[in-house]
Formats: sequence, structure tokens, C-alpha cells
Amino acid sequence: MAKEIYRLLPHESTVYLGDTARVPYGNRSPETVIQFVQESVEALLKYDVKTIVIACGTASSVALDHLQQKCTNLPILGVIDPAAKTAAELTKSNHVGVIGTNATIASNSFGKAVLNHNPSVVIHNQSCPLFVPLVEEGITDHHLILAETVKYYLANLKSAPIDTLILGCTHYPIISEAISSYLPQAVLVNAGVSVAKNLQQLLTQRQLSNSTAATATHKYLVTDKNPAFEKTAQTFLGRPIHVEKISL
Amino acid sequence: MAKEIYRLLPHESTVYLGDTARVPYGNRSPETVIQFVQESVEALLKYDVKTIVIACGTASSVALDHLQQKCTNLPILGVIDPAAKTAAELTKSNHVGVIGTNATIASNSFGKAVLNHNPSVVIHNQSCPLFVPLVEEGITDHHLILAETVKYYLANLKSAPIDTLILGCTHYPIISEAISSYLPQAVLVNAGVSVAKNLQQLLTQRQLSNSTAATATHKYLVTDKNPAFEKTAQTFLGRPIHVEKISL
Repeated sequence: MAKEIYRLLPHESTVYLGDTARVPYGNRSPETVIQFVQESVEALLKYDVKTIVIACGTASSVALDHLQQKCTNLPILGVIDPAAKTAAELTKSNHVGVIGTNATIASNSFGKAVLNHNPSVVIHNQSCPLFVPLVEEGITDHHLILAETVKYYLANLKSAPIDTLILGCTHYPIISEAISSYLPQAVLVNAGVSVAKNLQQLLTQRQLSNSTAATATHKYLVTDKNPAFEKTAQTFLGRPIHVEKISL
Repeated sequence: MAKEIYRLLPHESTVYLGDTARVPYGNRSPETVIQFVQESVEALLKYDVKTIVIACGTASSVALDHLQQKCTNLPILGVIDPAAKTAAELTKSNHVGVIGTNATIASNSFGKAVLNHNPSVVIHNQSCPLFVPLVEEGITDHHLILAETVKYYLANLKSAPIDTLILGCTHYPIISEAISSYLPQAVLVNAGVSVAKNLQQLLTQRQLSNSTAATATHKYLVTDKNPAFEKTAQTFLGRPIHVEKISL
């Protein structure tokens, strides 16, 4: 997601916060996810940000409505609606698949949002809790363990008439090749791309865009400095980064 | 581990605390693991316990020495030394394998402890970060994903002359069948069994055992109430339990 935002909005400076001491959120209760996301938002507000992107499928599914109601003075974007709108527009068969963590799928957040845009769509939900640990372990392209796990989770979707699949977790684009080769009938919707476009529109509409060509700066905050995060950041961004530890 | 303790010490009441809002610890830095374990110990001290078992390979590897130095007034047991002693006594080839999380293997805690008991042993360490998520997802016996993951992590140990393998994480006994069938040459050391024996000895030595036949009570505290924990508890204990949520 960060990568797509840097590409589309090269003049915007960003502050990234990864709650690396307490991720993954995907199996936690809504109550705990809301508490953790709220603490992260409070930490980001100290950096005088003009908007916040909840760049996580689970956090967006469970905590976004709550946060938008609490923080009325600055826009908070999630990954749900941008991806849902794209999927609602793309589908021809009116059958859309959604994959995500247990918490995301239990909330049916993407499904509800797709139906808002197109009430005649049939939603096919499937949770895939092992995909995040696999990506974080670097088990991605052409790996037998990944191929078997894809088959294990997506067998029901394969036999469904879906032509569009929402990748409801920001880790999943990393394994999109394995998903596509098992489900070639479905166009994959990467929330990251949709969110970056949505952010661009929002900044333009509210006249918040940085129109100077000044070099943008990117700050990385984490709650735990550990080798696993550095490895994952490298996987996502394609380059090493400098991180700073904070407490929430 | 709880199961082995209930079996061996049926008259002892227990308070179990699972930091379910922040597990797994296996990829976190030592600094963060120490902080989390310290907060858990403080919460348990409020229940007037006579001893504390750190029933987690990662927490024992990283935080036990620190805690024992800080809490000199009550005994704190970890899983390292009991398992290491058993392995040092069992090995004939003097080659011992150790499997655990990234943090456990990085600490070489089991290796050092085995060498304390038998300095001529050669240690073969291997981290297996996906085993915990697999167990929590219920992918255990006779599952192709598990078999492939076992092969992926344990190929080096298979070609080593080990005859003893320490299961350095309390989740691993659940998948001992898959590990044994890939590594039939190694006797598996389950820290849980060793720790229960160690706890029994300690209570006897310090005259802390409960000699009445009063019914023991077992309390379960968690930091997040979620379906994943209930599923895992069921896997470990073989029965559903009532849990109470606390904040650390």
C-alpha cells in the first residue's frame, strides 16, 4: 500500500506506523482491534497528519466506522470501500469473492460495501488465516507449501461462479501470482491500488494536495524493532528502511 | 503443559494467563518479550500464587533469567532447563536437535542449557516459525500442508546425526506425530512433561505441595477473548473452558 501511495503521490510526505509488537490482528476480537487501532491513530495525530489511511484489512473492517465517528476533524480512509467499489464495477457474473483474515471475514465488511454499490451481487466469503504468516515467512512465489495452502482455502471459490476476487488483506498482493494461477477465472482486486487513487481524489477535493515539488519524506515508526518486520518491509517496499521504535 | 501439570499434580489449583491480545511472541524482539512477560508475571502475583511456570519456549528463552533475578521471593520455572536436562541424558550420539520460534533459536537458550549438563553434545538448531500458526489453524495430523512444512524446516536435521530432538515450543507436541514420522531417528523431548515433573520436585523440596485432597480449581485469564484462543484451548486440553478477560 505504501508503495502505491509513494508512486501516485510522490510529493506527499508520510508517517508509517506498524504495530509490530501486537500484530497480526487477524484472529483478535473486535474490541481489542478497536483499542489497538485507536492507540495507533492517537500516536499518528501527534505528527500533525492531514489524513490517515488504515492500511490493514482487519483494522479497516473492524475499527473504521468507530474511528470516523470519533475523529470528525480529519478524514480517515480504510481499504474496504475503495476495493468494494472497484469489485462492484468489475464483476460481470455478479459473483464476487472476498478473502481475508478471520476477523475481516467475520465482519463481512467487504461484502456489505460491495452490496452498497451493487445490490445484485452475490458475495462468496473465505477466511485464509495462514496467508499472513506465510508471507511474513517469505513463502511466496512457486512454493509448494503456498500452493497447497491456496488450494486448501480456495477450493470452494474455485467451484463458485466468481469472476472478481477482493484481496481483503494488505499482505495478499505479495502472493497474487499463486492465487491467480489457482483461480484464473477471477480478476484480483488489490485494495492498495484502489486506496492510493481514493487518497489522491480526497486530497484534491479537499485542496490538501502538496503542489510544491519539494522532496517528500517518509518516516517509519514501529512498536517493536525486530528482524521479522525488516524482512517484511523489504518484501513490500523492495528496499531496506530505517525504523524508529515508539510506545503506544 | 497445563494438561501435564493437572495430571501429575491433581490437588494443586492453578491460574492460567494467556496473553492472547499480543501472541505469538516468536518473532518479537527480546526487549518486547521481556516487557510482556513481566506484565504477565505482575498480573499473576495478584492471585497470591506460590510459584510461576513460564509455559512458553520463547518467553522462557528470552525473559526467564531476567525475571528470576527480579523476583527472588518466589520460584519461577521455565521450560528450558527441564527439557535440556532430559535431552542431555537421553542422547547417545551426542547430537541434539532443537526446534523453536525465531526468538527461541536466536537465543540458543536450549543449546546452552544442554551443554551445561553435557559439554560434549553438538547442538543442531532450527527455527520453525510456521508451526505455531499451523497448530492454531488446526492443521495438525496427516495434513499435506503440515507434512510439506515439516520437510521444509527439518531437512537439515534429517541429514544430521541427531538421536534426540527438543520440541522448544509448547505448541509442537500437538504435531509430534508429523515430526516423528519425518524424523524417526530422533526421540522427541516434550518440555511439558519435563516441566510438570520439575514443578512437582520443586513443590516437594520447598514443602509447598498441597497435601489435602480438596478439589483443585483452575482459573483461565486472557487479554483478548477471541474464538481462536477457545479453539486452541480445546486442542490442547481436549475440552472447552471458561475464560475471563483482564488487562495487563
